[in-house]
Amino acid sequence: MKPLPKVIVRILEALKKHQVFCIVGHGRPDGDCIGSQIALTQALLQHSKTVFCWNEDPVPQKLAFLDPDSLVRPPRCDLKFDCVIALDSASLERIGKAVDCIKERRFLINIDHHPSNTKFGDINWVSPKSPSTAELVYRLLKAGNYSITPAIADCLFTGISTDTGSFQYPTTKPHTFTIAGELVKRGANLATICDEVYQSYSLSRIRLLQQVLSRFHLVNNNKVAYFWLKNSDFERTGSDVSESEGLINHIRDIEPVVVACVFEEIEPNVIRISLRSKDENLSVAEIARKFGGGGHSSAAGARIEGSPETVQKQVIKAIVEALNSFVSPEILQ
Amino acid sequence: MKPLPKVIVRILEALKKHQVFCIVGHGRPDGDCIGSQIALTQALLQHSKTVFCWNEDPVPQKLAFLDPDSLVRPPRCDLKFDCVIALDSASLERIGKAVDCIKERRFLINIDHHPSNTKFGDINWVSPKSPSTAELVYRLLKAGNYSITPAIADCLFTGISTDTGSFQYPTTKPHTFTIAGELVKRGANLATICDEVYQSYSLSRIRLLQQVLSRFHLVNNNKVAYFWLKNSDFERTGSDVSESEGLINHIRDIEPVVVACVFEEIEPNVIRISLRSKDENLSVAEIARKFGGGGHSSAAGARIEGSPETVQKQVIKAIVEALNSFVSPEILQ
Repeated sequence: MKPLPKVIVRILEALKKHQVFCIVGHGRPDGDCIGSQIALTQALLQHSKTVFCWNEDPVPQKLAFLDPDSLVRPPRCDLKFDCVIALDSASLERIGKAVDCIKERRFLINIDHHPSNTKFGDINWVSPKSPSTAELVYRLLKAGNYSITPAIADCLFTGISTDTGSFQYPTTKPHTFTIAGELVKRGANLATICDEVYQSYSLSRIRLLQQVLSRFHLVNNNKVAYFWLKNSDFERTGSDVSESEGLINHIRDIEPVVVACVFEEIEPNVIRISLRSKDENLSVAEIARKFGGGGHSSAAGARIEGSPETVQKQVIKAIVEALNSFVSPEILQ
Repeated sequence: MKPLPKVIVRILEALKKHQVFCIVGHGRPDGDCIGSQIALTQALLQHSKTVFCWNEDPVPQKLAFLDPDSLVRPPRCDLKFDCVIALDSASLERIGKAVDCIKERRFLINIDHHPSNTKFGDINWVSPKSPSTAELVYRLLKAGNYSITPAIADCLFTGISTDTGSFQYPTTKPHTFTIAGELVKRGANLATICDEVYQSYSLSRIRLLQQVLSRFHLVNNNKVAYFWLKNSDFERTGSDVSESEGLINHIRDIEPVVVACVFEEIEPNVIRISLRSKDENLSVAEIARKFGGGGHSSAAGARIEGSPETVQKQVIKAIVEALNSFVSPEILQ
């Protein structure tokens, strides 16, 4: 058996030594963030630690089944902590409003898989090769002999499944499958998880998808697909912002498309963009970085100030430039 | 180590003993059928057997990458075989036109996971608990020490992935994940497979989906969703029949929907229905059987003679009756 990596040993020591914890994640949390946060919270509660689990945004409806006891709460600024653990968050800024409320801490642990992570912790376990933060939390709990209950298995399976696009992204490793199988063996309820996460879209979300499909744009020889989401779209379809997650995959999945982009005006003249790349040699994280954002090679995002027209022009230009400067290995062969 | 099940031992003996093989699958082949057929064909070719691999329909475009050497051919009726192997086919009828061309055989092996399998072989390995036929072929090749090449790993991974809905159906077992991980380790190319199978929809298919989403019907308190596919739909969107696969999942995945159904008039007054159930306690195979069809508890189908209006009325009535006679365990608690 290989010896444990030192960073895991140091984190396990910190978990043993401290008593009062705060576990934070990024705003607009996804399955990997929420799953990792609740799994680690439950593991520490089992060991009679005091744990606060915070997110500035509520748990999305489709992930609510992971949190029947409402462990995830909004941050409050009147507490002191022995140890704060940030999960799945590439920078302190990504934690949002909670940043102001974790200043009174003795120690900060940063566990993440985003390559753009700024290593803001006293201990940083940043593993860009890991397809999900939940996989790191699994390895941590196993190494520390924490009991993986069915509820923890549900959380970690959800994190792994959602951040690998249901085991489809090329980041998925052989041991990712092994861990998923282990979690199902430990009681992760595949029927419930997949029903809630993948098979329970609201009627309003279906209307939103229908609208996207009737209105998206293709440019640059159909290699780039994009669409806009506006407040009026949410109003017209009766949907809310959290329901827009995953819409981008539908246009990414069109055969000739290499890069997909969604534009969303979140405040007047503040545009949120989400990017997806289907070619492992074209990193949308690099495009996002040009606009002050970040992410993974195949999925990234940014917030950009400017008028909708200007931002769209700039972003499409950057995508087309990346496409033009990039020569697919298939062409070189 | 557990001893091998007798049925596997007997099949391995037959594979050793015979020289000229024909491997057949069902018409309108899916990833599990094509993947299983090509994997077993390649394994036998490695052992210098003569192998004909037949399907009455061509390999769907999105699975063409599995068959660069065009191993899958249409049946021809001038050959004799030592051994015919039927894969993923619940009955001889499902094999279609090939049935007439495999009469000159000494032995028939039937490997399948459909519960409705009619056990038409000299050896029948029918394992309804297996989520895919590809998983059975994997077990067979492992037990017989056949070499799992990267090409075979691609085929088997594709079969397992597609027949589990990308590891989402509750039929997916812990060892399904273990096998998937093993196949990736042996060279299954996740990037290519998922790009080809899940991320390469044609523009015409997107238009077809858009049409379905703007036109499907909900009845019985939104518990039943259905739509029609007509020749004019394929013509209008420029799509072909094979592109309709998976459309049903979009209406199944609406939150209140329990049963989804697609109607397709394949000949005048011959209607093909596809059914999906989202509740493991409501079996659509039972509904399909009422109309002479079959399948799995969560996915089934039938061909029904009658006018479109009459067939729709009968099928929706049968679905509503099944829903009404069924009391969810959640309600009983």
